Amino acid sequence: MPLRSDWSGATCPIARSLDVVGDPWVLLVLREALQGATRFEEFRDALGVADSVLSRRLGAMVDADLLARAPYRSDQRTREGYLLTEAGGDLLPVLNALMHWGERHRPRTTGRMAVVHEGCGAETAYADSCSHCGERLTASNVSWVKPRDPGVRLPLVR
Amino acid sequence: MPLRSDWSGATCPIARSLDVVGDPWVLLVLREALQGATRFEEFRDALGVADSVLSRRLGAMVDADLLARAPYRSDQRTREGYLLTEAGGDLLPVLNALMHWGERHRPRTTGRMAVVHEGCGAETAYADSCSHCGERLTASNVSWVKPRDPGVRLPLVR
Repeated sequence: MPLRSDWSGATCPIARSLDVVGDPWVLLVLREALQGATRFEEFRDALGVADSVLSRRLGAMVDADLLARAPYRSDQRTREGYLLTEAGGDLLPVLNALMHWGERHRPRTTGRMAVVHEGCGAETAYADSCSHCGERLTASNVSWVKPRDPGVRLPLVR
Repeated sequence: MPLRSDWSGATCPIARSLDVVGDPWVLLVLREALQGATRFEEFRDALGVADSVLSRRLGAMVDADLLARAPYRSDQRTREGYLLTEAGGDLLPVLNALMHWGERHRPRTTGRMAVVHEGCGAETAYADSCSHCGERLTASNVSWVKPRDPGVRLPLVR
């Protein structure tokens, strides 16, 4: 099996999606972006990857319309940051579903992460709607938290 | 970036899941299994991969408890098939979410696939619950169909 087949024209939409997000690093970059990371250094520090590799990765995600470049000012210089696009944010259910599966089938003995719908404050067992109130989950109404620290928004670490 | 980091002990459950399903071929094998494929030849014909590669892949998925070996009789011989485990079936929401994203952000001009909850017959916009009636989706109550051919259960092709 070749490492990366070209599935961009596949009949199956799952294969077409995997053509974009089949590399797990893409989903880990999105994980950081969904938690508010926008600057190169934030992605680098969270993911622990070399500058050149991350730069190439972010560029590919811009090309795929998962991220959009956005200039910002820092130290009196204009730098380039990365904002989630609509298509990037719409991958939230994929990440939520992976989180639920990981907690269920690859649990850790200490600690646990949960998907919390901030609209009603409940932990949701579903990936794209709140299993408590039914509202659709979006990048702006979800937190990933440790249930034992209610209300604390925690960055996920590797 | 190494191709496959070891994320099995990661704090983040998304990373732990990606340690198992980060290879897109794993999700494509699960796609076939969720549609009823159990025999080696069924996976091979659907995915178009060499015997040796598929055999290694299926073995790894058995080791990861996504599939379980199950003997069956054919041509008066006992052969080995592969059945979805509970952990394998629980990846349905990941695949549904990828299908929804692919149809929305990588649409094809002809044809479209939908996730249908057979319990109420409605197309669901959600990955793990029916957006029409609210019931939880499972491997046994979902079909992937082309909406223009209602009621026809279609195998997805690459």
